[in-house]
Amino acid sequence: MKNHGGNLFTTALLVILAFSQTNAQTRRETGKDTGAIFPKGQRAPTTTFTGTVWVQPLIEADSAFNIPVGYVTFEPGARSHWHSHAGGQVLLAMGGLGYYQERGKPIQILRKGDAVKCPPNVPHWHGASPTVEFMQVAITPNTVKGRVTWMQPVTDIEYNSLRK
Amino acid sequence: MKNHGGNLFTTALLVILAFSQTNAQTRRETGKDTGAIFPKGQRAPTTTFTGTVWVQPLIEADSAFNIPVGYVTFEPGARSHWHSHAGGQVLLAMGGLGYYQERGKPIQILRKGDAVKCPPNVPHWHGASPTVEFMQVAITPNTVKGRVTWMQPVTDIEYNSLRK
Repeated sequence: MKNHGGNLFTTALLVILAFSQTNAQTRRETGKDTGAIFPKGQRAPTTTFTGTVWVQPLIEADSAFNIPVGYVTFEPGARSHWHSHAGGQVLLAMGGLGYYQERGKPIQILRKGDAVKCPPNVPHWHGASPTVEFMQVAITPNTVKGRVTWMQPVTDIEYNSLRK
Repeated sequence: MKNHGGNLFTTALLVILAFSQTNAQTRRETGKDTGAIFPKGQRAPTTTFTGTVWVQPLIEADSAFNIPVGYVTFEPGARSHWHSHAGGQVLLAMGGLGYYQERGKPIQILRKGDAVKCPPNVPHWHGASPTVEFMQVAITPNTVKGRVTWMQPVTDIEYNSLRK
């Protein structure tokens, strides 16, 4: 009979654990629960990114009002190539653990809620940490001056420079 | 002895419920868990908003790169006055249920993940629905042309026009 109590207890725990698990999985797969605000979008071009990166356009530029906004998901280890924006860029860290580096400066860690202002024409890159993904909103104003100038990939030595 | 099993079951459920409750409350109060990306900030001025509105600046404008970004929380029923931006504005709906209206058009409902491009010089207002709060990121580019021109408050008749 004591066993009976233990069984009930175990069953209750298992049911609750299974429920939490299913919920978290649904959230990850559909992005329709409170866990994700924007959909993951499509794969970013491998010509300008290293690793697996997803981009969901939120605002498309048009001739009257040039301010493309996109939601970007970097899988662990993934990052952009070095690049610059003639009109600058703003990044909002939405979740995970990100890296951001401007040429000649150390890598800066980005956590949920951080905001970065990348000045016009300053070469920089951004991406996920080696073990945790990173989600950001990227705002690229003043695109009449040019949207982005792509440069060389971020080498593994550059990417791993934080951990030395 | 059967009671013993029931007690264990009830205790397990109570412990789990209490834990969930505490977690949710911590999230609400500190904004440090997965529930909130940005802090709520400070009360917005009552001269340009109706009801209770909170603003957290994320990016401050400077002379080199004029693109203020802010996180705004509208409590239920709260809304901005009518206003326009000489450089336009982008809104990203982060949660809750929002209203957005451009002069001469019907109210548009905003849900988590929606993005709105408000063209330069178009009078508009935004806020929460009457019963559910609304959280948004507001991006105001091209502020060299002027950041915002405030107009009259949104009347209750205008605010309630959706439900007619």
